Amino acid sequence: MSDPSTAQNAADSIHGRGEFAVIDAITRRLPQGEAVSVPPGDDAAVVRIDETPVAVTTDVLVAGVHFRTDWSGPDDIGRRAAAATLADLVAMGADPVALVVALVAPPSTDADWVLRVADGLRDEAAITGASVVGGDLSAGDRIAVTVTGIGSLGGRVPVLRSGAMAGDQVAVAGRLGWAEAGLAVLGRGFRSPRVLVDAYRRPEIPYWAGLVAAASGVHAMCDVSDGLLADLGHICTSSDVRINIESALIEIGDPVASVAAAYGSDPLPWVLAGGHDHAFVAAFAADDELPEGFTRIGDVGPPTGFDAAGGSMVTVDGEVWAGPSGHRHFDG
Amino acid sequence: MSDPSTAQNAADSIHGRGEFAVIDAITRRLPQGEAVSVPPGDDAAVVRIDETPVAVTTDVLVAGVHFRTDWSGPDDIGRRAAAATLADLVAMGADPVALVVALVAPPSTDADWVLRVADGLRDEAAITGASVVGGDLSAGDRIAVTVTGIGSLGGRVPVLRSGAMAGDQVAVAGRLGWAEAGLAVLGRGFRSPRVLVDAYRRPEIPYWAGLVAAASGVHAMCDVSDGLLADLGHICTSSDVRINIESALIEIGDPVASVAAAYGSDPLPWVLAGGHDHAFVAAFAADDELPEGFTRIGDVGPPTGFDAAGGSMVTVDGEVWAGPSGHRHFDG
Repeated sequence: MSDPSTAQNAADSIHGRGEFAVIDAITRRLPQGEAVSVPPGDDAAVVRIDETPVAVTTDVLVAGVHFRTDWSGPDDIGRRAAAATLADLVAMGADPVALVVALVAPPSTDADWVLRVADGLRDEAAITGASVVGGDLSAGDRIAVTVTGIGSLGGRVPVLRSGAMAGDQVAVAGRLGWAEAGLAVLGRGFRSPRVLVDAYRRPEIPYWAGLVAAASGVHAMCDVSDGLLADLGHICTSSDVRINIESALIEIGDPVASVAAAYGSDPLPWVLAGGHDHAFVAAFAADDELPEGFTRIGDVGPPTGFDAAGGSMVTVDGEVWAGPSGHRHFDG
Repeated sequence: MSDPSTAQNAADSIHGRGEFAVIDAITRRLPQGEAVSVPPGDDAAVVRIDETPVAVTTDVLVAGVHFRTDWSGPDDIGRRAAAATLADLVAMGADPVALVVALVAPPSTDADWVLRVADGLRDEAAITGASVVGGDLSAGDRIAVTVTGIGSLGGRVPVLRSGAMAGDQVAVAGRLGWAEAGLAVLGRGFRSPRVLVDAYRRPEIPYWAGLVAAASGVHAMCDVSDGLLADLGHICTSSDVRINIESALIEIGDPVASVAAAYGSDPLPWVLAGGHDHAFVAAFAADDELPEGFTRIGDVGPPTGFDAAGGSMVTVDGEVWAGPSGHRHFDG
């Protein structure tokens, strides 16, 4: 008997319909109760527990899709899994309090290897003061790590993707393109420049800058996990604005530029479309002094004259970016 | 190159060391911050978010380990995945407020099948008034559903496994052995008795009875997911007590008894060691009137004279149970 979970026609599969379309279809089927302050669709949801707003978000990393066990050590994998969730909480303006983790692994997996994944989760969580408070462990074919985080808004309003306004300045805190350049290095079978490989294996996320931005009244924020242009596209769609990035304002790190030169590549696609760095990109009022760690890279404009379909609401130096704007899974 | 995540020696693998030993080793490496009221080791953890206690727990179900796509429909799988997490929250005395879900699926998976998993999650959550507020979707070899839940204690103290006291009465709410009997039916290639197959596919969990018990000052509670004796063993270990079950007090459902008779099996192992029903088992003060839905099945005694190692602290009719006491994963 064929597996009833497999699509009869490729067009009806997750791959055929597209990951984002399936997520969108799921979301439309989910009624949201009275306790829900921020429904699905932002970096995290916010629900009221006994009148206290709690931010909650979940992320899954799968071997062969989000990491390779021969490219990243178990502690690196744990750190990255925690980081993806912690960055989502911070992008919401929430201070991470606790993580829970579900680990799927083949029964033949080295138990010490698993312990080191837990160490990585613990150490990344500790940067933000969060604790790993629970988990589950199950057999499966491939290693997969699902990390769910909950965080405190501490009396602040959540920072939504929908708050950007025409006239705002767009600014970024953290690295852009470093992890993608590191992946390019690993993909060619190299292990150096080490600083780029490390940037991929163990991203350094400016959690503090994100929380300071949230406390200072930032209009909109997300972490860059899909790629800068894709994530700015989410802000544009949610806020009904357009965003123009000035490429001259984007700092291209020296190692990124060097490796691009060595490979005869243009570093800009890594910077504009690379994920994994978990920088924070945000819209601030035009006359705001930017919080420490943030650098202006562009501006928010009205949506007039732009295609409401998404990606083309983001321009680079006034032009629609011709290259890829971000990552997709389910392309395998 | 061999995969660095795979154990060189079978004894060092998760299977070799044992699932619970690995979980225990992980837990010992995780420091718990000041915000953590109930650390890992109970049905759920409790953390304070802006001084409000929040219960949080996560469960993962993997195809071929916890369900089979030819035995359960997508809505059933969604319901069971939600139920495992919701039952953990209720066993903690927490009213479920929100779920987030991470779904791993092959790219060839039918998108409509995935939507029906989401429907099942939604419908089971709705029984408790909880909303599905977010999620993540990733490619992988096998379908896996990780559901994390957060819940409100509404000013009550959490119901721990460690609160049972000598002299307490042990009582259960919900079905025992029905789902296991349904699995036995499916395992023989049958689809009837339908009532047992349905009990496996879509367990009916007495969430309400669990919450009423929590509000009425129950001493200790857990949901039966590992098997009655195994879960009572957790209470014994945490509470430093022994528990004796009187088999004559355990109701064996008519369909369970009939199928056991037809298969020439003893129904007691299904009842004592079967999982999946998510009944609530609890210790109440001896003179408490049991809340509606709970039936007394035994008593709590002092630990004297019993082996502190675990399982043998639970007896059936005064004897150590010779059969299996519960489920293990990683046996494949």
